[in-house]
Amino acid sequence: MNDTIPNWLMQRAALTPDRTGLETEHQSFTFRELHSEALKRAGALRKLGIKKGDRIAILLKNSAEMAHQIQAVFYCGATAVLLNTRLTAEEWNYQLKDSKAALFICGEEFDKKIPDANIVTPSQMREMAAPLKDPVEEFVLSDTAVLMYTSGTTGKPKGVMQTFGNHYWSAVGSVLNLGLGPEDKWLAAVPLFHISGLSILIRGIIYGMPVQLHGPFNPEAVNHAILHEKVTIVSVVSTMLAALVENGKGRPYPGSFRCMLLGGGPAPKALLEQCRDQQIPVFQTYGMTETSSQFATLSPEYAISKLGSAGKPLFPCRVRIMNENGEEAPVQTPGEIAVKGPNVMKGYWNREDATAAALRNGWLYTGDIGRVDEEGFLYVLDRRSDLIISGGENVYPAEIEAVLTAHPSIADAGVAAKEDKKWGQVPHAFIVASDPMTESDVIRYCAERLAKYKVPGKVTFMEKLPRNASSKLQRNLLKELDN
Amino acid sequence: MNDTIPNWLMQRAALTPDRTGLETEHQSFTFRELHSEALKRAGALRKLGIKKGDRIAILLKNSAEMAHQIQAVFYCGATAVLLNTRLTAEEWNYQLKDSKAALFICGEEFDKKIPDANIVTPSQMREMAAPLKDPVEEFVLSDTAVLMYTSGTTGKPKGVMQTFGNHYWSAVGSVLNLGLGPEDKWLAAVPLFHISGLSILIRGIIYGMPVQLHGPFNPEAVNHAILHEKVTIVSVVSTMLAALVENGKGRPYPGSFRCMLLGGGPAPKALLEQCRDQQIPVFQTYGMTETSSQFATLSPEYAISKLGSAGKPLFPCRVRIMNENGEEAPVQTPGEIAVKGPNVMKGYWNREDATAAALRNGWLYTGDIGRVDEEGFLYVLDRRSDLIISGGENVYPAEIEAVLTAHPSIADAGVAAKEDKKWGQVPHAFIVASDPMTESDVIRYCAERLAKYKVPGKVTFMEKLPRNASSKLQRNLLKELDN
Repeated sequence: MNDTIPNWLMQRAALTPDRTGLETEHQSFTFRELHSEALKRAGALRKLGIKKGDRIAILLKNSAEMAHQIQAVFYCGATAVLLNTRLTAEEWNYQLKDSKAALFICGEEFDKKIPDANIVTPSQMREMAAPLKDPVEEFVLSDTAVLMYTSGTTGKPKGVMQTFGNHYWSAVGSVLNLGLGPEDKWLAAVPLFHISGLSILIRGIIYGMPVQLHGPFNPEAVNHAILHEKVTIVSVVSTMLAALVENGKGRPYPGSFRCMLLGGGPAPKALLEQCRDQQIPVFQTYGMTETSSQFATLSPEYAISKLGSAGKPLFPCRVRIMNENGEEAPVQTPGEIAVKGPNVMKGYWNREDATAAALRNGWLYTGDIGRVDEEGFLYVLDRRSDLIISGGENVYPAEIEAVLTAHPSIADAGVAAKEDKKWGQVPHAFIVASDPMTESDVIRYCAERLAKYKVPGKVTFMEKLPRNASSKLQRNLLKELDN
Repeated sequence: MNDTIPNWLMQRAALTPDRTGLETEHQSFTFRELHSEALKRAGALRKLGIKKGDRIAILLKNSAEMAHQIQAVFYCGATAVLLNTRLTAEEWNYQLKDSKAALFICGEEFDKKIPDANIVTPSQMREMAAPLKDPVEEFVLSDTAVLMYTSGTTGKPKGVMQTFGNHYWSAVGSVLNLGLGPEDKWLAAVPLFHISGLSILIRGIIYGMPVQLHGPFNPEAVNHAILHEKVTIVSVVSTMLAALVENGKGRPYPGSFRCMLLGGGPAPKALLEQCRDQQIPVFQTYGMTETSSQFATLSPEYAISKLGSAGKPLFPCRVRIMNENGEEAPVQTPGEIAVKGPNVMKGYWNREDATAAALRNGWLYTGDIGRVDEEGFLYVLDRRSDLIISGGENVYPAEIEAVLTAHPSIADAGVAAKEDKKWGQVPHAFIVASDPMTESDVIRYCAERLAKYKVPGKVTFMEKLPRNASSKLQRNLLKELDN
């Protein structure tokens, strides 16, 4: 079997050049135009010395410009490193260094206190724009298309290697589940630097379907698009869905709106029931950066009878629940969720140990706890005990703890999730101080070093943290202290 | 990337067990039932000693039984060798021997004059049926799922190795082009032993879509299914389409009928125009056994403006026109059609030379002549000069010539296509006889050795055949003599 696939956007532009591919608030692009924009920027990248196999970091807000830049990177045969716009300069710097990025495409609006980085802005690139003469005609399925950083239990973010094959299989797995019609239009109001947003952009090209791209989430704008601009599918996390329901009251969605794809962690049952009553077709999904988007989805015929389940695997994926002895757990018995499929990442960039720990015999061990019922429906019971999901962003306690314990007056620190009405969860820091300090001292110190959504929403000072016999921090006990 | 995919039917039965998967005139099966039927037959195969990697020949007419047997073979990790029901015992015997089939599942109604074959009938298998305990849970994408024989220029049929990956990519390429809705139902009135029929069966399982399976083509039955049984897609060859149009006069198809997928060789322009006038949505396609079904299709938005074109490649495929020097021909210049994509066969079974001749640098050289217009639309100008397409079946002159020249009274023989109102084309034999003989002698002799559709429709006796300087038969001159 061939291990290549035609360059997605070039192929799409050749197949259906005149279809609309991308809409933003003020602009619209056909696939031919998207190709042309990518080709011009790829020419600029070449002038900047970019060659096949390089890594190029991108720090841009959701915009047509960002979509063009990602494609331009692919046209050069390079890998896109997508940086989260909410991080601090220090955090960006870590990912730039770790990925050994040859170039850093950085929006004008961002703080550029990045030492040693080879920075270029989109407007500088526009000045150099010229169509690339030899764009990559085929993508090798096993080549890394994107590096996306995620932290996990180690504290230090790791680059998830998502291949071209991963993205293709993911897009196809989704279409086999959700179907595809000539009227489909997918709205992305989630960040393109996250897999949730990037996967929409890629699906649009592979499906030949228009994507409507939004900037910061605005419930009225999304509802307007559903009600009046023929959007048929929207990807959301539960805080967004709650805001849409609140904003949309009294304005029922048209019958052509067929899918509210809900990801990014567990959703409150009350919200799901509210959606059911208002006939909003919510598809609960489960996935992560390491699986290149959703790998389980609750399909429409079970939306009511299995409310609260993440559904069944997508066609190319398998799911297993593993017990502590590494065996498959019986039906209805909770255990660690493991997943296998061609959408599962190649591994973590330059982290052989972490890769070996996560990928065993082709199975990705998610660290999340779940069970499968008699009919094969997956229920996600608990994210990794230490994972905090705040407004759809993953927050890893270990990362915050590492920052806290670096403070000269902090002897020990632990972080756990605190329930929060607006964000679902926020980090709660538990601190053993060696010198007198206040909650605001801690928060100010974190705000200088961590993205806003990682800064603790509450600080509790303690004499001693709960640790087990081998002195491992017991975050589950911290969590109980809080709730 | 993982190189496996879950066993299709097992996965589908796990995902949507209660959906209808297969309908025949008298029966209907959910995916759960299809799984159960396959599992039982796989148990019988195991009792018969079948193991992973074996080849199992199947000679059955279109039926639920045949669909179950094919899946059962996959459940055992074996390869299905699908035999054309129209061949003679001698032809079946050749393919059984060439494929080294470990078992021959042969319908009760067929002539079993097959020496040395390990024959079993479906009713014998039913007596042994018992659910297999350890069915193959995953298919390896590069494993050969099916061997399908095709002749080509060499005379001797060659086994095309279609992998699980080939079929998956083909099914997915089709869905990205045609879309997929919850109401889709695909009718197969083409043989399951051909790629046209087999690919429908596989799509049904991968898409979770019901397939309505017909026996011998009956225009009234197909039109009834379109008009009253909610069939949305039908695969046809042009002789079938002409019969449907003739039979359906005055009964317009419902708006829900969305695709008449037309393959198996060129279609008369008058027929295409007739369909256009009657608003029958014809999608012309181009493909072959070696590409595991269609690889180019004329998409709906161009159905009228590009009438007569085979359209553009499916998303995962590339098409090139090559000139005689092995370079890509300019736009609008005729040359040999080459295709590349993950749906292209792994090669010919045990025919390294033939494989190397057909597959060069990942490109399959089809032997067909075509051109591509300025907008990238492919026009198939001529099938391999020697290929005869009779009622959708490929007929290879070399194979018939080999039979003819084996006759003691035939000194030389050549075969070319003769236009035929009913079948499109039929073989026309040109014979240099060394002893007195009649047309009916020749026809009777061929009928004993060749499938009916290969038996010459006309015989012309000649003094001498046209041969070039190196004494190569000039079939193009024979063809001109005829038309």
